[in-house]
Parts: sequence; structure tokens; C-alpha cells
Amino acid sequence: MATWAERLAGVRGVLLDITGVLYDSGTGGGAAIAGSVEAVARLKLSPLKVRFCTNESQKSRGELVGLLQRLGFDISEGEVTAPAPATCQILKERGLRPHLLIHDGVRSEFDDIDMANPNCVVIADAGEGFSYENMNRAFRVLMELENPVLISLGKGRYYKETSGLMLDVGAYMKALEYACGIEAEVVGKPSPEFFRSALQAIGVEAHQAIMIGDDIVGDVGGAQQCGMRALQVRTGKFRPADEHHPEVKADGYVDNLAEAVDLLLQHVGK
Amino acid sequence: MATWAERLAGVRGVLLDITGVLYDSGTGGGAAIAGSVEAVARLKLSPLKVRFCTNESQKSRGELVGLLQRLGFDISEGEVTAPAPATCQILKERGLRPHLLIHDGVRSEFDDIDMANPNCVVIADAGEGFSYENMNRAFRVLMELENPVLISLGKGRYYKETSGLMLDVGAYMKALEYACGIEAEVVGKPSPEFFRSALQAIGVEAHQAIMIGDDIVGDVGGAQQCGMRALQVRTGKFRPADEHHPEVKADGYVDNLAEAVDLLLQHVGK
Repeated sequence: MATWAERLAGVRGVLLDITGVLYDSGTGGGAAIAGSVEAVARLKLSPLKVRFCTNESQKSRGELVGLLQRLGFDISEGEVTAPAPATCQILKERGLRPHLLIHDGVRSEFDDIDMANPNCVVIADAGEGFSYENMNRAFRVLMELENPVLISLGKGRYYKETSGLMLDVGAYMKALEYACGIEAEVVGKPSPEFFRSALQAIGVEAHQAIMIGDDIVGDVGGAQQCGMRALQVRTGKFRPADEHHPEVKADGYVDNLAEAVDLLLQHVGK
Repeated sequence: MATWAERLAGVRGVLLDITGVLYDSGTGGGAAIAGSVEAVARLKLSPLKVRFCTNESQKSRGELVGLLQRLGFDISEGEVTAPAPATCQILKERGLRPHLLIHDGVRSEFDDIDMANPNCVVIADAGEGFSYENMNRAFRVLMELENPVLISLGKGRYYKETSGLMLDVGAYMKALEYACGIEAEVVGKPSPEFFRSALQAIGVEAHQAIMIGDDIVGDVGGAQQCGMRALQVRTGKFRPADEHHPEVKADGYVDNLAEAVDLLLQHVGK
């Protein structure tokens, strides 16, 4: 295998996943992953460009950033690419009026969106909001549309809370896709448009960028599809089987963000 | 198109779907579909063999039959092929100890099944039981197994209650399949084993049998795959688009069970 110096050659920008890389979410807000607060601080002191690229869809960007700041992270709202704001832009551009199946925490992002007489469904990680009743409601809206449009904020399979693994929006997106016989439009990783908008925000080309995430498919596979390099951290939802994934091979596996930043600062961006 | 006499030639046995054909389920037990009580009675007076073949998995066979009898139907438990008893047989044969994600109404069918230290998940139409918490529990059981086994009682997309369309077990099966990266084993329609066991119970060959159902894929497509003929009724979950389904074409479309029985008694089984 190539040396780290070879694998990291020419990297100018870093995209950082948030949940499972910076912190584990959970009741009471969650907990920073050991070493990640310092790792982000060191990265931001280096010449490398840094952008946070998350599929978090339970919280508004403001809430998420506030939580991370309380955990000690140096992060501001303007540094975060998140699916809810990207979705609002799409809704406005296409004249779509959503029925929302989302967590209350992210509802404020949709404050200036027209929701009368819905002509699409927007689904996000609704957590406990994924009740049978709420799923039926979204399902019936779709079944009454001549051309049903389902927009999903990410398509993650699951994530890790401090209390254990939790089903993510992707599972419920698949349920609605199957029930309605349709295919959802995904806003968020691994959608190439989403990665590109994050890169654009820091003015870095894909071949000069590296993604650091805990999701072998959504983060690593998605970023590689866009021409970026990608590292998987062994925190968050990482599972040992990920290192032998049948389709995706990361450019490197590291124990945590701290190790990734050690390697980056050692080999690039001096 | 062939005449009804040609299409129905040689039919000796009839498989009847229950929900959406005999009755629409709903709060308070549901309601018989107009003409169906008399249609079943007439069919049973004819020389045609009759078997009820249902994916109902919210109720035990006993409960379902009791409900139908109260609605006026001539039906007994021994005449019904249903997925829960078929599942119990599979669990015993393979030494599987299930974690159950099912409706309380069907729990009694599993009374003599060992459920200690589960090594598989059985999912059925759990209705309100499809909470986020219950889905996460089933998901975590699967993720802790080296070889996760998921058994689904049917894979219906949705059904119609008196209050509207409801998501069926298939949607939640797809959610768990996607989250775990596995494929479920389906017990019930459209599984060929399930149709064959119903035919065996009345001693009729597939080419001599006709299925009558409201589900274009599960009932009609499934039965045709087994070499049977199949009619779709325009009751229950039927939707006009079903008559132009891209993959499945019924041997006939009828307004309801009463019309199907009229045609059968007119052309066969005299």
C-alpha cells in the first residue's frame, strides 16, 4: 500500500463529517469524541481549508453549531454545509410546497417555506417522529399526487447515539419508496451536488480535497465518487466489517479524527 | 381478448384473498364489502373447491375468522391459509428463536415458540406497533447477529382500512433490509411455497386454480408466477392504475367478488 505521504499528497482542503467524527449525539446533547476538539483546533491553525459537511437533519444548523461550541469546538454556522438549507433552496427553485416528516429541532429552517396544499414530501431524520401515524400521513400525501416527489435529507442507514445504534432517515425513505413505487431525491451526502457545494464554499477542487467520515458508504464512497480522497475513522458508526466492505475502500482507516489530523499535519499543509 | 368462458375454462378451485375482497378492515372490526357475504355462500354451494389465502398478520387466525363470522361470512379456521402458522413451522424446523415485531393480536400464534436469546427477527403488520423505538429494537437484534435472519409475514406495500390507506409490513421490511444490508425471507403471498400450501389443502393443481385478490402484485402476480390464473377485484386497495401495471396483467378485472363469482358460476363448476 502507498505511504501516507503518497496518499495525502496535494491535499489542500478537508471536509469533516460531524456526527460520529466530532461527537456522538445522544440524550443531553451527546459527548465530544476524545481528541476531536483539539484536532479541529489544530486543523484550523494549519494552512488547510476546512469545511464541515454533515447530514445532520434533526437539528437546525444554529442548534447544531451551538451544541458543538458548548462541547468546546471552534466552529461557526457559516462553516457548515447541511441538507436543510440546501433543501429549502430546491423547494423555492421548483415551486414545491412540502409536507414535512422531520424532527421538531430542524423545523425552524423551513420557516419561510410555503406549505399550503403540499405537492411533495420532505423526509429527514425525524427520530421518535417516525411513528406509524406520521409515516401513514406522509404516505397518503404521496399517494394522492399525480407525480409524487419525495425529497430525503440524506439516506443514512443508521447512526450511533450514546445509547446505541439508531435507524436513520434512509431506512424510512426506503419504506416510502417501496410503498409508493417511487424513487426519492436525496439532498445531502452522498449526493455529488452536495459535496460539490461544500468544496465550492472553500474554493478547493475535488482532487485536492479529502473527506473524513465514519460512514463507509455515505462519506467515503460518496466523496470518492466525486473525485476526492476519503478516510474512515474508527469512531461513531464505524464497524470492523467496514474495512472489508465489498464495494468501498477508503484511502485510509484511522482510529479517530485526532489520528487523521496528525497524519495530515505531518504530511501536508506545512 | 379471450371470452370469459375461455379464460375460466377448467377452473376447479378458487383461492380467495380476505382483506379488501371479503371485507375492509378498520376500527370497530371493519365492514363487509357489498355482495361478498352472499358471493362466498354461493361459491361454497358450488362444486368449486374454495380456500381462503390471506397475508393478514395483525390478527390470529381464530380472531380473523371470528370477526368474519360476525360479519356474516361462512368461514372456519381450517379453511384459512395464513402466514403466522406457516412461520411457526419454519421457526421450529430451523431452531430459530424470534424477536417479534408484530401486532398484539397475532401474538398468541407464537405461544409455544422459544423466544429466549433471539437469533432472528420476525416482522408482521404491527400497525401502531411500528414505532421508532420498536423498529430500533428489531434493528439492533439483527445488527448483533453474525448471520442476521429477518422473516417477514408478507411484503405488502399498503392496504386500505375504512379510515384510509395504511402502510403494510413490506415497507418496514424494506427499511430493515436497507439498514442492515440484508434480504428478508417472505412467508405469505407472493411466496410460491405459500400459494402451493393453500392449493395442497384443497387438492387442486395450479393450472386448475384461480386466485381472486385486490393486490395486483402480491395476489395476481404471485399466483400467476405459480401457474395459476388470477382476477383482480376493484375493491380494497385496488387503484385504477393497477389495470395498466407495467409488469402484471390479471386474467380479468371485476368490480368485486360478487361479479367474480357470477362469472365463475356462469362459466365453470356447473
